[in-house]
Amino acid sequence: MVNETQHTCSASSSSKSDGGSSSGSESSKDSSRCSTPVLDADRHERLREKMRRRQDSGDKWFSLEFFPPRTANAAVNLISRFDRMGAGGPLFIDVTWHPAGDPGSDKETSSMIIANTAVNYCGLETILHMTCCNQTKDEITGHLQKAKRLGLKNIMALRGDPVGEEWEEEVDGFNYAVDLVKHIRNEFDDYFDICVAGYPKGHPEAESYEADLRHLKEKVFAGADFIITQLFFRSETFLKFMKDCQAIGITCPIIPGIFPIQGYHSLRQLVKLSKLEVPQEIKDVIEPIKDNDAAIRNYGVELAVSMCRELLDSGMVHGLHFYTLNREVATTEVLKRLGIWKEDPRRPLPWAVSAHPKRRVEDVRPIFWASRPKSYIYRTQEWDDFPNGRWGNSSSPAFGELKDYYLFYLKSKSPREELLKMWGEELTGEESVFEVFTCYITGEPNKNGHKVTCMPWNDDPLATETNLLKEQLEKVNRRGILTINSQPNINGKPSTDPIVGWGPSGGYVFQKAYLEFFTSSEIVTALLKVLKKYELRVNYHIVNVKGQNITNAPDLQPNAVTWGIFPGREIIQPTVVDPVSFLSWKDEAFALWIEQWAKLYEEESPSRMIIQYIHDNYYLVNLVDNDFPLENCLWQVVDDTFELLN
Amino acid sequence: MVNETQHTCSASSSSKSDGGSSSGSESSKDSSRCSTPVLDADRHERLREKMRRRQDSGDKWFSLEFFPPRTANAAVNLISRFDRMGAGGPLFIDVTWHPAGDPGSDKETSSMIIANTAVNYCGLETILHMTCCNQTKDEITGHLQKAKRLGLKNIMALRGDPVGEEWEEEVDGFNYAVDLVKHIRNEFDDYFDICVAGYPKGHPEAESYEADLRHLKEKVFAGADFIITQLFFRSETFLKFMKDCQAIGITCPIIPGIFPIQGYHSLRQLVKLSKLEVPQEIKDVIEPIKDNDAAIRNYGVELAVSMCRELLDSGMVHGLHFYTLNREVATTEVLKRLGIWKEDPRRPLPWAVSAHPKRRVEDVRPIFWASRPKSYIYRTQEWDDFPNGRWGNSSSPAFGELKDYYLFYLKSKSPREELLKMWGEELTGEESVFEVFTCYITGEPNKNGHKVTCMPWNDDPLATETNLLKEQLEKVNRRGILTINSQPNINGKPSTDPIVGWGPSGGYVFQKAYLEFFTSSEIVTALLKVLKKYELRVNYHIVNVKGQNITNAPDLQPNAVTWGIFPGREIIQPTVVDPVSFLSWKDEAFALWIEQWAKLYEEESPSRMIIQYIHDNYYLVNLVDNDFPLENCLWQVVDDTFELLN
Repeated sequence: MVNETQHTCSASSSSKSDGGSSSGSESSKDSSRCSTPVLDADRHERLREKMRRRQDSGDKWFSLEFFPPRTANAAVNLISRFDRMGAGGPLFIDVTWHPAGDPGSDKETSSMIIANTAVNYCGLETILHMTCCNQTKDEITGHLQKAKRLGLKNIMALRGDPVGEEWEEEVDGFNYAVDLVKHIRNEFDDYFDICVAGYPKGHPEAESYEADLRHLKEKVFAGADFIITQLFFRSETFLKFMKDCQAIGITCPIIPGIFPIQGYHSLRQLVKLSKLEVPQEIKDVIEPIKDNDAAIRNYGVELAVSMCRELLDSGMVHGLHFYTLNREVATTEVLKRLGIWKEDPRRPLPWAVSAHPKRRVEDVRPIFWASRPKSYIYRTQEWDDFPNGRWGNSSSPAFGELKDYYLFYLKSKSPREELLKMWGEELTGEESVFEVFTCYITGEPNKNGHKVTCMPWNDDPLATETNLLKEQLEKVNRRGILTINSQPNINGKPSTDPIVGWGPSGGYVFQKAYLEFFTSSEIVTALLKVLKKYELRVNYHIVNVKGQNITNAPDLQPNAVTWGIFPGREIIQPTVVDPVSFLSWKDEAFALWIEQWAKLYEEESPSRMIIQYIHDNYYLVNLVDNDFPLENCLWQVVDDTFELLN
Repeated sequence: MVNETQHTCSASSSSKSDGGSSSGSESSKDSSRCSTPVLDADRHERLREKMRRRQDSGDKWFSLEFFPPRTANAAVNLISRFDRMGAGGPLFIDVTWHPAGDPGSDKETSSMIIANTAVNYCGLETILHMTCCNQTKDEITGHLQKAKRLGLKNIMALRGDPVGEEWEEEVDGFNYAVDLVKHIRNEFDDYFDICVAGYPKGHPEAESYEADLRHLKEKVFAGADFIITQLFFRSETFLKFMKDCQAIGITCPIIPGIFPIQGYHSLRQLVKLSKLEVPQEIKDVIEPIKDNDAAIRNYGVELAVSMCRELLDSGMVHGLHFYTLNREVATTEVLKRLGIWKEDPRRPLPWAVSAHPKRRVEDVRPIFWASRPKSYIYRTQEWDDFPNGRWGNSSSPAFGELKDYYLFYLKSKSPREELLKMWGEELTGEESVFEVFTCYITGEPNKNGHKVTCMPWNDDPLATETNLLKEQLEKVNRRGILTINSQPNINGKPSTDPIVGWGPSGGYVFQKAYLEFFTSSEIVTALLKVLKKYELRVNYHIVNVKGQNITNAPDLQPNAVTWGIFPGREIIQPTVVDPVSFLSWKDEAFALWIEQWAKLYEEESPSRMIIQYIHDNYYLVNLVDNDFPLENCLWQVVDDTFELLN
């Protein structure tokens, strides 16, 4: 059930250095005792560098704009959308700044927190918008400091709409976006990449198109790194604008803002806000079908695709910025038709790499949180390095607390009623729990006809990789070996393998077979007898909620269970079974029985008592088959155990 | 030509911990950010712990005593003997203290320097003897501090023979070994493991056998960790002594000192020194054959074997200590007949691990020094950790200087005349150099009938592993690709493989094919054209003596070329091609042409000018085939190069 959250990645580049390097220390600035082998240059690059590299390599890219949601529920859904749309490989996403929505606060719906979640929990390179008018320098500095603390590295500097009709310029205040750009550079030096807005038709309030171009140049010369434009309806509009920019000396990247028309209403609203005029030929098409959403969207997609093609074919455009309106279908469709949506993005590592600058070098995680990466990130956010003291240094902060069930970005996407339908309105015994696990594995509906699409330990449907093990998993779950994590053994598949591959091409990936499950003490007793036969081959950790711990792991060392061999690199071993962190995971894994499942039922109800019984009495077991070139023996171990019990 | 120096090693142990471990930080004391995966418990154990573990496991062991040589040439030979006898797997060796030979000095022949060489350069656990009588506390402390600085962890504390007839006890001086034991514990706490001498027949100067036992008990209670006995001629002598020791409360290990009789003269001398009486039945055998060395040695071996068997069969003896008299044959013969000489010792890593406490955790080295490990150790002795700043940190000390050709433990075992016979009294051109390389590879005699058994880059005959590549190597050397290092690709052979295996059993070892050679600029030009075809598959570094450097290595990262996957462990990658250290190796590799070869000839002589020409104009090339599961393509690369030249 390894949850293969997919992540944007680009091919590794190889650099060639010729001549003259006669001293070993010349290349030393990048080395340090504990440096991570660099698998992907872009993990260590700033956004502007990524942009530059993609431009140089001719590799077209896209980015996605979202606005903060209004409700906490909508926030949960937006985060899921980030994960899904992140899978297509955007170079970055950006989150708009809503002055009315307390944008810098810690609310689940604030611009700041949504951007934070995108960077830290979805692993997306993120730009946070920020507007400056009607705000003091201190307020702005406070927002920027907070953004920096949260790991945000990119700001879109905007003026914003003045509050009130009678707005007047303030002396020494923030009157224009250029003031904000200057302020960021003054206060934070080169820390942030700064983006500014460009208006292909000129800003509606500008004296003239030419005057607006001069304002744009001021913003760039004040320190902006690139420009994203307001939407437009014809490619010529953008291309003319770009030439005009270049003519007055603006050389930074200019990214066209694309607005796929998705509905009559949203178009009208946008036009009103942006004071843009919709070309007559578009109006002519739309008006007759204004009540047919599907027809308008189809037209919008066609229009966007053909305009984007013209832009890309011009040779002047390397990336496209999409105003998604927080919707998925139209933008995804356009991207797929353009061929720049990455259907099968290369994963730099088998888990999604965080985009936080401090975490970008993280290169190894315990396998236990494979299906709960956001929980792992949350609980390790205070660490100074990854892994922290090799997981076990008592002088360092340990894993964070378990309060994370309540954080919105970790909440189940399914409401209570739906969970009850999946996991049982009423449980009649341990067997009805076995049944839930089995239905999750098989994808078959339960006896009330509901499919089980998530579990407390896994908020997503089964990963592709796990499908390889489906038949075996079904068999053992039915008999009370309640699996929550597993991976097959892999003996050197190409790193480009669509299912198990990761890392740059030209490499080979390997896995040791892994199986993790809850089971009764009766089964554990038999299992331990069976494991004696496999003593040298299988490593095990068996622990109950009280922390009673049985293991044959040598010296409590981590066991590498996923690794890759790449051209010109050190070995990468991104996933391990680590005995020390297993005990932290154990607390979380057991607590999920109660927090996510038992609490669906009334206190003292039989259903709740059944889950409580399992929580109190079952063991959490993990097994690793070290002999990865042979056939996975873990199923044999389980079969032998059942046989012994019969 | 990987020089497989073999090294003592024992199987790894796996620890089992049951119950009660509820907190992740309980096991933290051994963890640190950069800790090395522990492949062999004994790499981190003190000698007394190793002894205890071997006793617990029932795994019999042996140790070897040597005395410091009289001349520098003899020192070179003794070090070779350490390497050869070290291959049999002694638990430790010990080096006696010769007060007359300036034992604590920096002379090549001093006890201190010989012990230092054994620990640091031969990777042998070593006990340094030290005598105390006629010395001041300051002198002794100075010796101990120096020993500690050099990485010695074990001292055999002895009184030594008083100088002069009229020796009197000094108040507050060192009168007995027990004074030295107390002094070591006072001044160095528990840093050293301390060994003391036991006399199975009682010390000749002791009042009585019983009084001597009491003295021994005093030494143990003062802090000695174990006892090695004086030689004896009958197993009963030792077994009685051991029981008597136990009876008065001596519980530490007592190791019998075994003296295989190797000649009439040496026996008489030893008997005189030790004031022991040779049993009549031995005298009766030896006297008639006293002029027949071979016969006496055969008898001595028989006698030692049968006495050792009795000792081991008693169940009271777990290790045997051999007085080798710096000779190899008799002791090796006894050990082989007893079955405790390790014919095929498991290597913990593919290179010999240093026994220096600071270096024991070293787990990765560049492949370049594979045939010159002592040079690597010497040049990195000032490092604080291994690798130092991942080889490239400019704030750390770089590789040490190249003066090491003159260090006795790095000197060629062959004298100048012999080298001239092997490498040519007179060279007639570059082709005669090719011929020398070819003869070294094939083992065939050169045109003057001499075998080439060493090269400037490799003081030993070809390694077993290299034999696998012999045919190809011969072909390319004949044509001017002068190979100095190579390894075949290995795609997952068991770690117990007799040729390429290393590390604990149950694992799998892997290698990328590697080839390193000197060659002309003409061949390099063709090679570079050919390498374009292999751009993604083959990494190369090509450098000349001036440091002109051509490479396609990504970001100057190390490329792992040997790695192993073991049960319950992280990945071990002990050998890499590191671009930064390659430039240090380049200096050494080029200098060897001059220092070891050109200087054999008169200045201005044609032979010397040929070597000088090669040194000045050839390139040093290394190639790695990253595609280890496929057939090694490096030979194809070389063939393509030759074809292009034709």
